[in-house]
Amino acid sequence: MTAYADKPLSLDSELPALIAALETRLDQLLPESSERDRVNVAMREGTLAPGKRIRPLLLMLAAQDLGCDTAQAGLLDLACAVEMIHAASLMLDDIPCMDNALLRRGRPTIHRQFGENVAILAAVALLSKAFGVVAAAQDLPSHARTQAVAELSSAVGLQGLVQGQYQDLTEGNDARSADAIFTTNELKTSMLFGATLQMAAIAAGAPADVRQKLRCFALDLGQAFQLLDDLVDGLAGTGKDRHKDEGKSTLVAMLGSEAVHQRLHHHLRRADEHLACACDQGMATRRFMHAWFGQKLALIS
Amino acid sequence: MTAYADKPLSLDSELPALIAALETRLDQLLPESSERDRVNVAMREGTLAPGKRIRPLLLMLAAQDLGCDTAQAGLLDLACAVEMIHAASLMLDDIPCMDNALLRRGRPTIHRQFGENVAILAAVALLSKAFGVVAAAQDLPSHARTQAVAELSSAVGLQGLVQGQYQDLTEGNDARSADAIFTTNELKTSMLFGATLQMAAIAAGAPADVRQKLRCFALDLGQAFQLLDDLVDGLAGTGKDRHKDEGKSTLVAMLGSEAVHQRLHHHLRRADEHLACACDQGMATRRFMHAWFGQKLALIS
Repeated sequence: MTAYADKPLSLDSELPALIAALETRLDQLLPESSERDRVNVAMREGTLAPGKRIRPLLLMLAAQDLGCDTAQAGLLDLACAVEMIHAASLMLDDIPCMDNALLRRGRPTIHRQFGENVAILAAVALLSKAFGVVAAAQDLPSHARTQAVAELSSAVGLQGLVQGQYQDLTEGNDARSADAIFTTNELKTSMLFGATLQMAAIAAGAPADVRQKLRCFALDLGQAFQLLDDLVDGLAGTGKDRHKDEGKSTLVAMLGSEAVHQRLHHHLRRADEHLACACDQGMATRRFMHAWFGQKLALIS
Repeated sequence: MTAYADKPLSLDSELPALIAALETRLDQLLPESSERDRVNVAMREGTLAPGKRIRPLLLMLAAQDLGCDTAQAGLLDLACAVEMIHAASLMLDDIPCMDNALLRRGRPTIHRQFGENVAILAAVALLSKAFGVVAAAQDLPSHARTQAVAELSSAVGLQGLVQGQYQDLTEGNDARSADAIFTTNELKTSMLFGATLQMAAIAAGAPADVRQKLRCFALDLGQAFQLLDDLVDGLAGTGKDRHKDEGKSTLVAMLGSEAVHQRLHHHLRRADEHLACACDQGMATRRFMHAWFGQKLALIS
C-alpha cells in the first residue's frame, strides 16, 4: 500500500485542469433551462455534483499515453459521454426498486430530491444524450464515432451494466462463489472501464493488439476498483450510504479484508503489466491509477 | 373518414412480408438466452409481443418512396432500432411511478410480469441496444450511421420522449390549453416519428429540403396519430387499459370528439401535402397511412 501512497502525485498540476475542462464541457452539453424543468435540473445535479471523474480522466489520460493531445475537443466529448453514462447508472441503481440508497456523492440521491419518475426520466435522457454526444464528437472521423457508440452500447446493455445490476439485485444477498462475485464485478465495473479505454484507443487510432491489451487492463483495473469499493464500505466520507454492503455476499465478507487487499494488489500488478504492453510506459494512466489507489488504501491501512 | 376507409389496402400483400422480416430481424438482434435471465426475457417480451409496428413500417415504406430497396439489410436494422426505442418507452411509461398501467398489447404490462426493477433494466438495455444497432447498421456508410444515432438521441431525450412523458405526468391532470396539449403530443409522438423518417431519408441519402419536408410530415402525422389515440381511448380491443385518459386534459375532453375528428383530418391533409413535396407521390407511405387511419376511424364512426 505504502509503495503507492508514498509516490508523489506528479499529476497534481495536470488533473485539476483536466477536471475543470471536463466539467465546463459537461455544463455546456447539459445546458441549464428553467428551474421548472425538473428533468433538466436532475440531469445536471446527477452529472455535475462533485464526483471523482475517474472514468473520464482515465479516458483522457489513456488517450494521452496513446499519443493524443488532451486538448482535442473530440476527446473531451467522449469523456463527457462516459461520465453521463456513469451518472445515469448511479441514478438508476439508487432508486427504491433497486438499491434504495439515500446518499450519493454526499447529497440526497436524485430520486429523493426529485421523485422516482424524474430520476428515471433524467437517467434515460442522460443515456440517450451520451450516445448523441459520441455520435457528434468533434474532430473525430465518423467511423471512429460509430465504433465508440458500439463500445458504449455494449458496456451499458445486457452484457454490461444492466446485467451487473440485475445479478447484484437477484443474487447479491445469497451465498455466492468468489467466481460469481468476480463476474458481477466485471459487469458492474470493468465493462464501462473497458469501453472508456476502447474509446481512448479509438480516438488515438490504436491498432487491434493495443486495444486487446487495454481490454485486459480494464478487466483487472475494474476488479481492483470494485474490491477497493468493498473495502471502504463502512468508512465515513465516501459520500454514499455507509454499510450498504452489510448482508451482501461480497468478497470482503467471504474472505476477510486481508485476503481482499492481496487480491486487489494482484489485480493492480496485472493491470500495470497490461498497460505497459498496451502503451509503452503508459505513464499518465499509471501514475493516476497508483495515486488514486494509494490515497484510498492509505485511508484504511 | 369513409374516404379513407373505403380505399383498398393495396399494401395487403407487402405489409405482412415486411412485418415478418422485421420480427425475424428483431428476434436475431435480441437473441434468447436462458429463461433465468429475466432481463433478456423482458426485453424480448416487450419488443416481440404482437404490436402494430407503425414506426418501423413507416421507416421502410418512406425509404422505399425515397428510392431505397426495402431488402437492404441496413434499413431493417434502423427500423428495428426504432421499434426497440418505442418498446422501451412503453415499458417505462407503464411503470407504477409513471402511468401505472396494467395492460399493454393485450398482455399484463412488463413490470407486472417481471417486476419494476427488471422492467426498468430491460428498457435501459433496449435503449442502449438500439443505439448500438444503428451504429453497426449493415451496408450504411459510417457518416449515415452517426447522423442516425444523433437523430434517435434527440428524439428520446430532453427535447423528445422524456420531456413529453414528464409534461404528461406533471400537467396531464391539470387544465391545459390546446397549445400545451399540442406541444406534449409533439414531444410524445411526433419527435420519434420525425427521427424515424429522418433515418429513412439518411439511408436514402435524401437532400436537406426533402428532410425538412419529412420533418413537417412527421409533425402532422404525429398529431393525427395522438388524436386518434385519444379518440379510441375507452374502446375495447386496443390491448391497453381502457379509459386511461379519464381525468386527463386531452383535446377530446376539451373540444369534444367531433372537433377532434376535424382536427385529425386537418393534420392528415397537411401530412399528405408535406409528403407529396418530400417524395413526389410518396405512394407507399401514403397508402399505408391512409389505410391505417381509415381502419381505426371506421371503428369509431
